[in-house]
Amino acid sequence: MASAELLTSLYGDQHRLCPTPNSQHSLVLSREREIDLFELERLCDAVGWSRRPLRRVRKALQHSLLRVGLWRHDPRMPKLVGFARCTGDGVVEATVWDVAVHPLYQGAGLGKQLMVYVLDQLRSMEVDRVSLFADPEVVAFYIAQGWELEPLQRRCAFWYSP
Amino acid sequence: MASAELLTSLYGDQHRLCPTPNSQHSLVLSREREIDLFELERLCDAVGWSRRPLRRVRKALQHSLLRVGLWRHDPRMPKLVGFARCTGDGVVEATVWDVAVHPLYQGAGLGKQLMVYVLDQLRSMEVDRVSLFADPEVVAFYIAQGWELEPLQRRCAFWYSP
Ligand SMILES: CC(C)(COP(=O)(O)OP(=O)(O)OC[C@H]1O[C@@H](n2cnc3c(N)ncnc32)[C@H](O)[C@@H]1OP(=O)(O)O)[C@@H](O)C(=O)NCCC(=O)NCCS
Ligand SMILES: CC(C)(COP(=O)(O)OP(=O)(O)OC[C@H]1O[C@@H](n2cnc3c(N)ncnc32)[C@H](O)[C@@H]1OP(=O)(O)O)[C@@H](O)C(=O)NCCC(=O)NCCS
Repeated sequence: MASAELLTSLYGDQHRLCPTPNSQHSLVLSREREIDLFELERLCDAVGWSRRPLRRVRKALQHSLLRVGLWRHDPRMPKLVGFARCTGDGVVEATVWDVAVHPLYQGAGLGKQLMVYVLDQLRSMEVDRVSLFADPEVVAFYIAQGWELEPLQRRCAFWYSP
Repeated sequence: MASAELLTSLYGDQHRLCPTPNSQHSLVLSREREIDLFELERLCDAVGWSRRPLRRVRKALQHSLLRVGLWRHDPRMPKLVGFARCTGDGVVEATVWDVAVHPLYQGAGLGKQLMVYVLDQLRSMEVDRVSLFADPEVVAFYIAQGWELEPLQRRCAFWYSP
């Protein structure tokens, strides 16, 4: 078990340890530890997302309101096994994007803890309303956590750059 | 007809004049002219939106990626008759919020020109994908402009701060 001081030095003041049923590793959520772009790309590859140019990913992360990493703790080299980020004005609204847990770590309650952590951070900023666009195969994941689908018959619409 | 120099001094380099069928006034779109919070509140009142604390609106505007005003030109006191804003990382994605045209100015093609202007500005930032949440009574407004509703069966979900 790592000391609280060590965890804080690696993952920042706002870090949170994740209870898991049977992991030999400590798993840590952090909004402060910097995300390595290559590690993030590997994680996105692992969940089957199409690649984006790293230069653009870097800029998108910089312009995000909140970036959260889920780390498998290691004193020398923590490994990124989950991720989520939010954009938004941080007051009236925020939107959650790119929620992912590495396939080897799925099904252990980590995705749920990641979302709780994200919402706790947004709540501490006093954001009124958080939105997201759920792919069809994960809609149930969000519903089970109390997200409301299209309240007031709101529909989502997209426009893609030509 | 106002001179281009005057319009630029009032509305900035990126301003765009709106052609309208039969308006005695010049109508101007601008992402640069500052939005007065009280005027914005009156506009939101006029379209029937519930009020938000001004302090929070100010912060939300500051943290937005793009704020667009539609102005009825007047050399001394331009009047805000339309509005839209976007949040997002400005790279991978942006989201459009709070699109409104004053009821007295609706139905003249201004809402459409406002959206074209917003998308042109986002395109100039090279944003890949723009999203929005459409209220049921305006879904057709966006569809007619080429927005895709829930592509890939994506659903929108909301979480409200308790
Ligand atoms: C979606 C994802 C983040 C879930 O992470 P996870 O760590 O496996 O989720 P958890 O173990 O915390 O699951 C929490 C609960 O949701 C359920 N759940 C998990 N994935 C689900 C899914 N796709 N659909 C429905 N329910 C799901 C679990 O069964 C669990 O239920 P329980 O509380 O009754 O036991 C993960 O599967 C993932 O990264 N998927 C690929 C990327 C992706 O699609 N992201 C979402 C983009 S919108
Ligand atoms: C929605 C809104 C911005 C449209 O502005 P507008 O200036 O009246 O729209 P336009 O005159 O540019 O309309 C462009 C086209 O969309 C159509 N249209 C306008 N409002 C529409 C609506 N609510 N539903 C369906 N079509 C609509 C027009 O008929 C016109 O069609 P045409 O090109 O075939 O002539 C305006 O009605 C408004 O502010 N509404 C209240 C606030 C609101 O609901 N905002 C959206 C929140 S998601």
